[in-house]
Amino acid sequence: MKNDMQRRLAAEFIGTFWLVFGGCGSAVVSAAFPHLGIGFLGVAFAFGLTVLSMAYAVGHISGGHFNPAVTLGLWSAGRCAGKHVGPYIVVQVIGAILASSALWIIASGKPDWLPAGFASNGYGDLSPGHYSLGACLLAEFLLTFFFLMIIIGTTSKGAAVGFAGIPIGFALTLIHLISIPITNTSVNPARSTGPALFAGGEYLGQLWLFWVAPIAGAMVAGAVGRMLHDPVDAAIEASRATAT
Amino acid sequence: MKNDMQRRLAAEFIGTFWLVFGGCGSAVVSAAFPHLGIGFLGVAFAFGLTVLSMAYAVGHISGGHFNPAVTLGLWSAGRCAGKHVGPYIVVQVIGAILASSALWIIASGKPDWLPAGFASNGYGDLSPGHYSLGACLLAEFLLTFFFLMIIIGTTSKGAAVGFAGIPIGFALTLIHLISIPITNTSVNPARSTGPALFAGGEYLGQLWLFWVAPIAGAMVAGAVGRMLHDPVDAAIEASRATAT
Amino acid sequence: MKNDMQRRLAAEFIGTFWLVFGGCGSAVVSAAFPHLGIGFLGVAFAFGLTVLSMAYAVGHISGGHFNPAVTLGLWSAGRCAGKHVGPYIVVQVIGAILASSALWIIASGKPDWLPAGFASNGYGDLSPGHYSLGACLLAEFLLTFFFLMIIIGTTSKGAAVGFAGIPIGFALTLIHLISIPITNTSVNPARSTGPALFAGGEYLGQLWLFWVAPIAGAMVAGAVGRMLHDPVDAAIEASRATAT
Amino acid sequence: MKNDMQRRLAAEFIGTFWLVFGGCGSAVVSAAFPHLGIGFLGVAFAFGLTVLSMAYAVGHISGGHFNPAVTLGLWSAGRCAGKHVGPYIVVQVIGAILASSALWIIASGKPDWLPAGFASNGYGDLSPGHYSLGACLLAEFLLTFFFLMIIIGTTSKGAAVGFAGIPIGFALTLIHLISIPITNTSVNPARSTGPALFAGGEYLGQLWLFWVAPIAGAMVAGAVGRMLHDPVDAAIEASRATAT
Repeated sequence: MKNDMQRRLAAEFIGTFWLVFGGCGSAVVSAAFPHLGIGFLGVAFAFGLTVLSMAYAVGHISGGHFNPAVTLGLWSAGRCAGKHVGPYIVVQVIGAILASSALWIIASGKPDWLPAGFASNGYGDLSPGHYSLGACLLAEFLLTFFFLMIIIGTTSKGAAVGFAGIPIGFALTLIHLISIPITNTSVNPARSTGPALFAGGEYLGQLWLFWVAPIAGAMVAGAVGRMLHDPVDAAIEASRATAT
Repeated sequence: MKNDMQRRLAAEFIGTFWLVFGGCGSAVVSAAFPHLGIGFLGVAFAFGLTVLSMAYAVGHISGGHFNPAVTLGLWSAGRCAGKHVGPYIVVQVIGAILASSALWIIASGKPDWLPAGFASNGYGDLSPGHYSLGACLLAEFLLTFFFLMIIIGTTSKGAAVGFAGIPIGFALTLIHLISIPITNTSVNPARSTGPALFAGGEYLGQLWLFWVAPIAGAMVAGAVGRMLHDPVDAAIEASRATAT
Repeated sequence: MKNDMQRRLAAEFIGTFWLVFGGCGSAVVSAAFPHLGIGFLGVAFAFGLTVLSMAYAVGHISGGHFNPAVTLGLWSAGRCAGKHVGPYIVVQVIGAILASSALWIIASGKPDWLPAGFASNGYGDLSPGHYSLGACLLAEFLLTFFFLMIIIGTTSKGAAVGFAGIPIGFALTLIHLISIPITNTSVNPARSTGPALFAGGEYLGQLWLFWVAPIAGAMVAGAVGRMLHDPVDAAIEASRATAT
Repeated sequence: MKNDMQRRLAAEFIGTFWLVFGGCGSAVVSAAFPHLGIGFLGVAFAFGLTVLSMAYAVGHISGGHFNPAVTLGLWSAGRCAGKHVGPYIVVQVIGAILASSALWIIASGKPDWLPAGFASNGYGDLSPGHYSLGACLLAEFLLTFFFLMIIIGTTSKGAAVGFAGIPIGFALTLIHLISIPITNTSVNPARSTGPALFAGGEYLGQLWLFWVAPIAGAMVAGAVGRMLHDPVDAAIEASRATAT
């Protein structure tokens, strides 16, 4: 691939595929395995480690978003070029759908397999703990807001260089530790879209929330993060210029 | 935000909100979920990862305390300006209370929800394992003492640069692995205050211990840490000055 | 050891021994311990931490492969000299077999011990969740493909220096979180060979899949990784040359 | 503390106290808590995180051994001055005993508490899984051997700077994932001595093994590690000298 945009889109595709295949895969295949299953704790680690691993593998190529809400939040923070937003989101969604397809093929290779919700997100009756629409909306908004605050802060000029993939990945683990019982945890519209296409029915009808709430939370975080970090970043740049 | 103090207080507010929302949230929402719940192990990781993630996100702005005992311990160690102590503690407590409010709104969005202790700390009858007042006092004192020893040591001049957020965050995980059965783990008066205001009754009456013991442990650690690290730091500074 | 090749082979032997002893050992000894056992989640961490720890201990000597599929994938990516491929694979397999022997001696020191599958990999009737041959083949192919994409990306010139052992180790944890129920997780022909020699019978008859699928996935990843990272690496090198 | 040796011994005392208090504390207090207990997986993380956190906090002062086998293994590798060996081991053992005392005071603050083995190590009838003396001896020897190989390798001149505390700490987690059912995991004579003094009886009679096997494994690793790393370190030093 000789073209910068091609490489960026390849990186976002690979990273989002891995996020959905690894995170949803661990939920579908391993969470409830009799006696030895990994439970919600294992699923939380799986999602976080997809991002931790891919942030270090391809983050330097595309920025390592793997999530339309992250792309829009970083654009809102002035950290992502406008021309990247559309193409990034398209390949993220395609990656999520193909990952769900691959997972479906593998998971259905087990005798008497029942897909149930296929790791889809949901509210109300489709929430794992039957949380209300309002509770789910607020949770997804707040959790994506904080996710972006962490992404923006750990990649700002004052933060320790090279470390960002660790707090960002583990923040996604933490977010799942809080909210799998609430919405099955989205904070990522692409991750929600892939499985919902396979689960179908009511899950598709609820998909809107997992686009609206994460993107709203991310874009507010972009604005707040800008207010908090931009003056610090500017001061750091100025002092570096003086030093030279 | 153009003002340094404003940014510091915003950072402490955001970080403490996240600590309480994420840590107590995972305890209230996910710990005891039937069959797949994350247990005390998941809650321990959640608390630690709130600090790990926020230390890298806003630590360079405010120092990343998120905890009145940490602020006072670092002041005792000569690492925190006196003018910051009061304002930091005020916004930490406000952040904890607002995080508890948000958590209450979300958690109560589940049919037939019972708040029980709402992740409050307690001793005696309110200790998860019914540990005595004396045992709880000693545990909180010792654990906060060591927490501060780790914070002071990992941020001293001789320590590896950039890494501190990892050992500090995971130390908080470790502290929870030891002591959730004892006091439900505080080591942080702000974290204790938020949920206790909602749980009310006896929990409020026991709140004093979770201010007294962590702050005492932290301030002793400040004095000990100073004796241990200041001579080393001074030697490092001297050798750097010589090198230049 | 004065000879570079000797040190490389010693490093690969030690690392692969540790991977099999630690990973399979935790599965055989600790996974199903009554009430307190570590489950698949603990086994997943054990495998990942063998690689994380040895990557930092001997990775600078041999590259830290510990896995014939990794060696072949890196060769396919142009990152491993052809003369190293054969010797590396031989000592990896020897290390895996000796580790399995040591584990057998220790594990059989328990009264009434039954080896069962001795942590061997399998498909169909020998898959923990009875997944079909096709599902197992696809899972091993895809997971090794992504494992190599992460290894190649995190060690490319644009990636953060020094961090690679963390995402690579935790990627192996993640891979186990997804796929222990499917194949008992191989992605490593040496790791599969050691225990299968002791389990014998049908397990040996199924060993071919755990050579074919991981190596195929790794070599495809080598080619893809090359296309993705080589232009970036070349640009970085060029800019460094200009800077000097 | 103005004296280098005083600071070193203070660091080793604090680190070993934390290792025993945190590791054994999580085992005694939290492992078997009804329904929500952390199990062997949580205990494994606790032990590892004591070392990860203290390595970054005081490792630059004393080297961060916290373990007589580590001190002797590093001495055997030529990495620890002979004059430090005796004093280090003395304060490590004192730290472990005082930590066990503090833990006893706290743990006994629970109604109807039974100390059982008080997290002591044991073989045969006192092994959690009733593993034989021979299996326990081999396991402790091998695991301490690899622990030292990781310590020596990650702190050698070719290894990534600043990272060692992460692989070393997580290697101790891994070691516990493998071997809690076998010996309750020692690899550290000080950690074994503290609790055994409180458990008394047969536990004291078995204490010899947890001095002999870890120290033997560590000292063999020191010799092997020297053969593997010293030529590489020498080459690195030589190339640095040329560069200057």
